[in-house]
Amino acid sequence: MSFTTTRKVRFEHCDPAGIVFYPRYFEMLNACIEDWFDARLGHSFGAIHVGGGHAVPTARCEVRFSAPSRIEDRLALVLRPTRLGRSSLDLRIDISSEGEARLHADFTLVHVAQATGRPVGWPAPLRAAIETEIARAGDASLTQGEAPHGS
Amino acid sequence: MSFTTTRKVRFEHCDPAGIVFYPRYFEMLNACIEDWFDARLGHSFGAIHVGGGHAVPTARCEVRFSAPSRIEDRLALVLRPTRLGRSSLDLRIDISSEGEARLHADFTLVHVAQATGRPVGWPAPLRAAIETEIARAGDASLTQGEAPHGS
Amino acid sequence: MSFTTTRKVRFEHCDPAGIVFYPRYFEMLNACIEDWFDARLGHSFGAIHVGGGHAVPTARCEVRFSAPSRIEDRLALVLRPTRLGRSSLDLRIDISSEGEARLHADFTLVHVAQATGRPVGWPAPLRAAIETEIARAGDASLTQGEAPHGS
Amino acid sequence: MSFTTTRKVRFEHCDPAGIVFYPRYFEMLNACIEDWFDARLGHSFGAIHVGGGHAVPTARCEVRFSAPSRIEDRLALVLRPTRLGRSSLDLRIDISSEGEARLHADFTLVHVAQATGRPVGWPAPLRAAIETEIARAGDASLTQGEAPHGS
Repeated sequence: MSFTTTRKVRFEHCDPAGIVFYPRYFEMLNACIEDWFDARLGHSFGAIHVGGGHAVPTARCEVRFSAPSRIEDRLALVLRPTRLGRSSLDLRIDISSEGEARLHADFTLVHVAQATGRPVGWPAPLRAAIETEIARAGDASLTQGEAPHGS
Repeated sequence: MSFTTTRKVRFEHCDPAGIVFYPRYFEMLNACIEDWFDARLGHSFGAIHVGGGHAVPTARCEVRFSAPSRIEDRLALVLRPTRLGRSSLDLRIDISSEGEARLHADFTLVHVAQATGRPVGWPAPLRAAIETEIARAGDASLTQGEAPHGS
Repeated sequence: MSFTTTRKVRFEHCDPAGIVFYPRYFEMLNACIEDWFDARLGHSFGAIHVGGGHAVPTARCEVRFSAPSRIEDRLALVLRPTRLGRSSLDLRIDISSEGEARLHADFTLVHVAQATGRPVGWPAPLRAAIETEIARAGDASLTQGEAPHGS
Repeated sequence: MSFTTTRKVRFEHCDPAGIVFYPRYFEMLNACIEDWFDARLGHSFGAIHVGGGHAVPTARCEVRFSAPSRIEDRLALVLRPTRLGRSSLDLRIDISSEGEARLHADFTLVHVAQATGRPVGWPAPLRAAIETEIARAGDASLTQGEAPHGS
């Protein structure tokens, strides 16, 4: 089972060509990841960053844009975790509007200590929660080894 | 010869972990591309979008983040065009601070008509200017054919 | 009756001091106004701007910040229209979290033609809808004359 | 003598009406204040916030917009400090383009301790630097007492 959030394209997201200015998508994508951590993993970004002394920076992202979005479009963001490493996590987010694909994003996040910026293995409860999510996502594969892109 | 712009990391770019929130990088990357079009290609985004009825949306981007940036870091953004298609353009931007790599970004832009959103071949003067830039970049290859990811 | 929207403070809104970076509040305030136009006035920003050739720029805003907001705070934005001019509109938005005031904002919007940027009287249906909202807001006064700060 | 910075209006600042989306102005205004602290007061936001455990939040701002700005407009931001309180500072920023006024902004900043959020008197070197700036601004008045809107 994937995780879905919805967003309305607002005035603030659009550029002089009348379409979503792509850096605004990254705020939506980040918010979707934040919501997923909170709703499904039980570890909010606030708890991780402010209370916990850790962070979950993006190590890599690749986005392919297939069609523009316009003001008042209703967007669906569908998140699927795809691969869990010792301190890394790969996930995919697809954004569509009424069934039309808008973009496909692949992310690699890394769990790090704020003080050093160095990767730190996912704590056991977070790891267990991510594994459950990957199992629920069904079509995704769980790889225990490290990702080729490191972490 | 590559094209370089510089940016200071500001308070507005940083997150509660004290490092640049990565969606802010996309605004810097876009500004670098905008400056390159204006300074080197002689076609400003204003002229293309507002006067010209065209747009240059991003079709694909891939970014690898290698180290975090902090407030008051001085960033150098180095842009190199790498491949020109009929209506597409690949370019690479590397961001570093005092020689330390921060991120490496690959973009594919497409020249489209605003009214239809459909790809339109680069106009001859713009094509000629891009070809000159690719030749100046030296290490880049000029491919006349279309990109595998379309254009 | 006032109009209320809610927002969660996200990672993207917060600065290195761990509190909402105030320019981000303006995006929330604008989104609240946008939602009010859509939900209560029956005229979306999309219809006004894209279809209608008009715009509703902000002529003046004054914001007093009374307490900082932190990540994961639940904010309530309460909008009350206070004064309708020929082409202007005053409104007030109060933001609070669990009863604690965070900011108090006063806005003057102006209805203009996009082509000229000149003020244009509110169209009759929009004027009627705003008047109804002011009447519902109860404590607000409806002034038919122009605002001292113009319109 | 006032403090002036310049900015080019970019694609990222503009909305579907082709003019600067006003929340983007607040980022420019904040950057101008940040540059002034760094260049004229000798205390960077980084040093104050990250090293020093203090912050300089905005307690109040009032902005009057007189004309829209469009892509590629060259903006001049002119900052003048106007009033120094024990822990507060009033300043004015005027933005214009080629002599045409675009907006006039009045700010009240407060120097606070990050841990408590409580106002803390300006440290002596910062106070002395601000007083020098107010004296240089010439037309501004130095008031030793507290501002009516607090500090």
